[in-house]
Amino acid sequence: MVNFAVVKIRKVLTKSDIKRINSLKRKSKRNEYGLFVVEGVKIVQELMDSDFKIQQIFALQSELDQFKNAISVSEKDLGRITHLSNPNKVLALVEIPKMNKLDRPNETILVIDGVNDPGNLGTIIRTADWFGIKQIICSENSVDCYNSKVIMSTMGSIFRINISYQHLPSYLAKADLPIYGALLEGESIYQTEFSSPSIILMGSESHGISEELIPFIHHPVTIPGAGNTESLNLGVSTAIFCSEYYRQKSK
Amino acid sequence: MVNFAVVKIRKVLTKSDIKRINSLKRKSKRNEYGLFVVEGVKIVQELMDSDFKIQQIFALQSELDQFKNAISVSEKDLGRITHLSNPNKVLALVEIPKMNKLDRPNETILVIDGVNDPGNLGTIIRTADWFGIKQIICSENSVDCYNSKVIMSTMGSIFRINISYQHLPSYLAKADLPIYGALLEGESIYQTEFSSPSIILMGSESHGISEELIPFIHHPVTIPGAGNTESLNLGVSTAIFCSEYYRQKSK
Repeated sequence: MVNFAVVKIRKVLTKSDIKRINSLKRKSKRNEYGLFVVEGVKIVQELMDSDFKIQQIFALQSELDQFKNAISVSEKDLGRITHLSNPNKVLALVEIPKMNKLDRPNETILVIDGVNDPGNLGTIIRTADWFGIKQIICSENSVDCYNSKVIMSTMGSIFRINISYQHLPSYLAKADLPIYGALLEGESIYQTEFSSPSIILMGSESHGISEELIPFIHHPVTIPGAGNTESLNLGVSTAIFCSEYYRQKSK
Repeated sequence: MVNFAVVKIRKVLTKSDIKRINSLKRKSKRNEYGLFVVEGVKIVQELMDSDFKIQQIFALQSELDQFKNAISVSEKDLGRITHLSNPNKVLALVEIPKMNKLDRPNETILVIDGVNDPGNLGTIIRTADWFGIKQIICSENSVDCYNSKVIMSTMGSIFRINISYQHLPSYLAKADLPIYGALLEGESIYQTEFSSPSIILMGSESHGISEELIPFIHHPVTIPGAGNTESLNLGVSTAIFCSEYYRQKSK
């Protein structure tokens, strides 16, 4: 957290702040600085309740009661640093946590093989949070979870879920939980009995689960339907898996 | 469909075509002309298999084998008429169907009270199509389903689903199917026994189901969860309702 002494010295937004914050739109810069941006009153409040380390908060004068250690900025200056089309009163610079370890070996893990759309990943993180699944592993070619669009669409769930990026063939080869894979052919999800804990493996919308991961699947599972459309949105199919897993677990 | 005689006469894209097609980005113009735009090889193929009336197709030279009656356009001209950031080889002008009647009185209807996000509506249409729900009614303040972003995210399902916009209090007052409403408080969706046919009523993400619609609900239903996050994405919660309805129906 920003300590009071620092705030006293640095009361203004500097040109170098502006440049640095704007550069964080790029993944390479986020990794270089080890920082990402969170915007909006509600989500920054959730951030403050989390274990994430906040480096700085910039807020409009009107919000300083809520964000006491924030650096006060004008609307114009907030417009200069925002990653949104409509800036939302407060912006926080947050440290990217060190490579998350899977510290809950006995809990269910959602594994996503190739999610490209930031909104989809955000929705998936929020859905996992809803159903109490606390760990997500994405393939290395997936969209970065510290992308502003992902952050916004998680609505704060990003601060409660342990997300890591891994080489999935190596990870799955070592995993010792039963692996349920979402495929177009498999047992109906409504007939499948999910073990808990388990690994739920979802493929990308355009390519499904990669060929090289298929041999690791113990239970091929499919979502039956009326047969009209070829695929479901990835956020939707993941939600149906999480919901059905939760339904069975909570029986 | 475009008939051959017309194509012979009008082989080029005119300035007035360009102006008219661009104006269809606006709902008011879509309603004025009674037309909307569909773009992309795959979705235009699905369009051609549907009952929708196509007024014109514009396609790159390379695609004329597939779209025999299309007007040939250059990449530059396609760039002038596209509603997408990356034009996709073919663009069709399609007639908006006359106000859809609910012509399947004995089938389940999905009713959405206030969906604003085009991607969410597109996802909902696609999910309904997957689970064989053929009728969607949206409140009048919902996003227009002929918006390009909605069309794109339905991936063709828009041509198979009967969508209408109605004043929901009047509609629900006259409806004689059991109404299941998605609320934060209610019976768990996993305990609820869904009748078939029925009405599944979903509220907007930010405001839920409007106060004035609450008295029409026969069965308040909720999606239980771990209690961490306040809400689910509307596309996700609708999908979980459709999936659970389908699971029970197909038992």
